[in-house]
Amino acid sequence: MFPAILAASERLRGHAHRTPIHHSRTLDALAGAEVLLKCENFQRGGAFKFRGAFNALSLLSDEQRARGVITYSSGNHAQAIALAGRLLGVQTTVVMPDNAPAIKRAATEGYGARVVPYDPATGDRKQIAEALAAEHGYTIIPPYDDPNIVAGQGTAALELIQDAGALDWLLVPCGGGGLLSGSAIAAKGVAPGCRVVGIEPEVADDATRSFHTRTLHTVHNPPTIADGTRTPSLGAVTFPLVLEYVDDMRTVSEDAIIEAVRFLFYRTKLVVEPSGALGVAALLSGAIQASGRVGVILSGGNIDGPTMARILTG
Amino acid sequence: MFPAILAASERLRGHAHRTPIHHSRTLDALAGAEVLLKCENFQRGGAFKFRGAFNALSLLSDEQRARGVITYSSGNHAQAIALAGRLLGVQTTVVMPDNAPAIKRAATEGYGARVVPYDPATGDRKQIAEALAAEHGYTIIPPYDDPNIVAGQGTAALELIQDAGALDWLLVPCGGGGLLSGSAIAAKGVAPGCRVVGIEPEVADDATRSFHTRTLHTVHNPPTIADGTRTPSLGAVTFPLVLEYVDDMRTVSEDAIIEAVRFLFYRTKLVVEPSGALGVAALLSGAIQASGRVGVILSGGNIDGPTMARILTG
Repeated sequence: MFPAILAASERLRGHAHRTPIHHSRTLDALAGAEVLLKCENFQRGGAFKFRGAFNALSLLSDEQRARGVITYSSGNHAQAIALAGRLLGVQTTVVMPDNAPAIKRAATEGYGARVVPYDPATGDRKQIAEALAAEHGYTIIPPYDDPNIVAGQGTAALELIQDAGALDWLLVPCGGGGLLSGSAIAAKGVAPGCRVVGIEPEVADDATRSFHTRTLHTVHNPPTIADGTRTPSLGAVTFPLVLEYVDDMRTVSEDAIIEAVRFLFYRTKLVVEPSGALGVAALLSGAIQASGRVGVILSGGNIDGPTMARILTG
Repeated sequence: MFPAILAASERLRGHAHRTPIHHSRTLDALAGAEVLLKCENFQRGGAFKFRGAFNALSLLSDEQRARGVITYSSGNHAQAIALAGRLLGVQTTVVMPDNAPAIKRAATEGYGARVVPYDPATGDRKQIAEALAAEHGYTIIPPYDDPNIVAGQGTAALELIQDAGALDWLLVPCGGGGLLSGSAIAAKGVAPGCRVVGIEPEVADDATRSFHTRTLHTVHNPPTIADGTRTPSLGAVTFPLVLEYVDDMRTVSEDAIIEAVRFLFYRTKLVVEPSGALGVAALLSGAIQASGRVGVILSGGNIDGPTMARILTG
C-alpha cells in the first residue's frame, strides 16, 4: 500500500496543508529524546482526517460524486468529509452521535453537510448510514476502514519523515486504526528502521488487546476523554494492516492524557484535543521509554471549550 | 534606529526562534484582507520579550555581566530576562507585582531568576529596582524604555516582512511601546508604504491619548484582561519613537479581546494571551477596517489556565 500513500500525497498537494513540525526543549528533556511534533491540529478542518477524506472523495467516479456521499463519525472525520465535499462539489450527509462535542457538529454543518443525529446507546451508526445510502444512492465513506482513507492518513507520517529525516520511533494515536496503519506503512516505506507504536487510552484498549492476541477485540462507547478513540474496534481493512506493519501498542491513563493536553497548552502553546495528545501522554507518563529521534503525530485540535476549561482548572 | 534592529537580528540568530507565520481562511474572510499572523507565542519564553532581553544582555560589558541585572515586569519581560540571563550566564533579579499570573512567576523562577514581589497598589516597582541596583551594583534592564530593548523587539516585524513580503498594514499590541516602536521602525525600514497601527485596550488607552494629543498620558493599574498592557505610560525613549514612526493608534473593548482569544483558540488552534490578541481583536471588532496584506503580531501565549477557562466558558 505504500505506493497508494505516495499517490495520495500527490493528490493532496495544494489542498491539504503540509503541516509544520514543532519542537519543545522541555519535552525533549522530560522524554530523554529529540521529539518532533507533527502538528495535524493545524490541518484543514483541525485534524488529520481531511487527508483521508479528500483522498477518498477525489477517487469517486463522476456518477458517485453526483449522487453524494454519506459517513458516520464522532466528529473529525465528519468535518473532514463535509469540507472535502464542499471543495470537490460533492453533497455530504453525516450520521453523528447526539452526544458529539457541540463544536464538531457546528463545524460539520458550517461546511455544508447535512447532519443526522442518533443515540449511540441504542442505535448503530453504520446501519443507519447503510439504510440512508440504499435509499438515496449515496456512496458510503467509512471513517477508517477503507484503503483510500488509510492511504490518505498515511501522508502525515510521510511528510514528517520527508521533512525531519529518519526517525527511531513514531508514536501514533489509535482509534479505528486508519491513521495508525497508514502511518506505519508510510514509515516502513521511507524509514524501515523506525519503530511504530500505536497509543490508546487504557479504558479503550481494544486495539492493544487485538494486537497482542491477534484476535479482534471490541469496546462499547468507552468512557475516555479522547473522543476520537471511542471507536468500537479496528476494522476488516485496518486490523490486518496494524498486525503487519505496527511494532507495538501501548496504553495511557486518562490522567496522563489530561496532563499531556495541559503540557501542550502551557509549554508549546498548541491547542491539541485529548485524542491528539496520546503520543505525548505516552512519553510524559513513561509508557514509552524512547531515545534518539521520536516522531509524534498530534492528530487534531478540535477540543470543546468546556473540556479544555476542565483540563486547565482541574 | 533601523541599523540597530538589523544588528539585533544578527545577534539573535540561533538564539531566538524565527517564529512561523500562520494564516486562517476564516480570519481573512471576516477581515476582508489577507492576514498574516506572526506567532511570537512560539518564541522562547512564550513571548516576543526574549528578543529585547537577549539583545540587551548581549550588549552588557563583562563587568556588568559579572555583577548581574535587575528588572521590573508584570511577567513576560521577567521570564525573558531570566531565560536570557541563564543562557548568557548572568545573574538576574526581578521585581514583580504580587498579583502577577502564577504561571509567569513560576516560569521566571524556573529559569533561575530571584523574584522580589511587591504590592502594586502601594509600591513603585521602578523605585524598588533602583534601590536594589544601588545596593548590589546590578544593571537595570527596563521592560521597554531602553534603545537596546526596542531594537530587539523590532526584529519580529523585520522577520515577518522579510519572510512574507511587503505589507499594507501592521497591527501591533501596545503596552509601554517597546514592541510598537521597534515594529514601526523595522516596518518603515523595509516596507515604507506599510501603515503601522498600535492597538490598546479601551480601558488602558494612555498611549492612544498620548499619541493623539502629543502629550504623555498615564493610567494606573487599568482593569484590563490584557495584563501585558497594564503599563502606566509610554516611556521617555518610546514616546518620541511612537510619535515619529507609528501611523495611528486604535482601542478595542475587553469583550473584543476575549472574543479574539477565543477565535484564535478555536479557529487557529493557537494559544494566545489577551495582550497578544489585540491585533486580531481590532480586525474582528471592526476597529481596523483593513484591506490588502495585513501583518499582525501575536505577541505572546503566556495565559493562565483559569483565565483561559473563563474565556472559553464565558
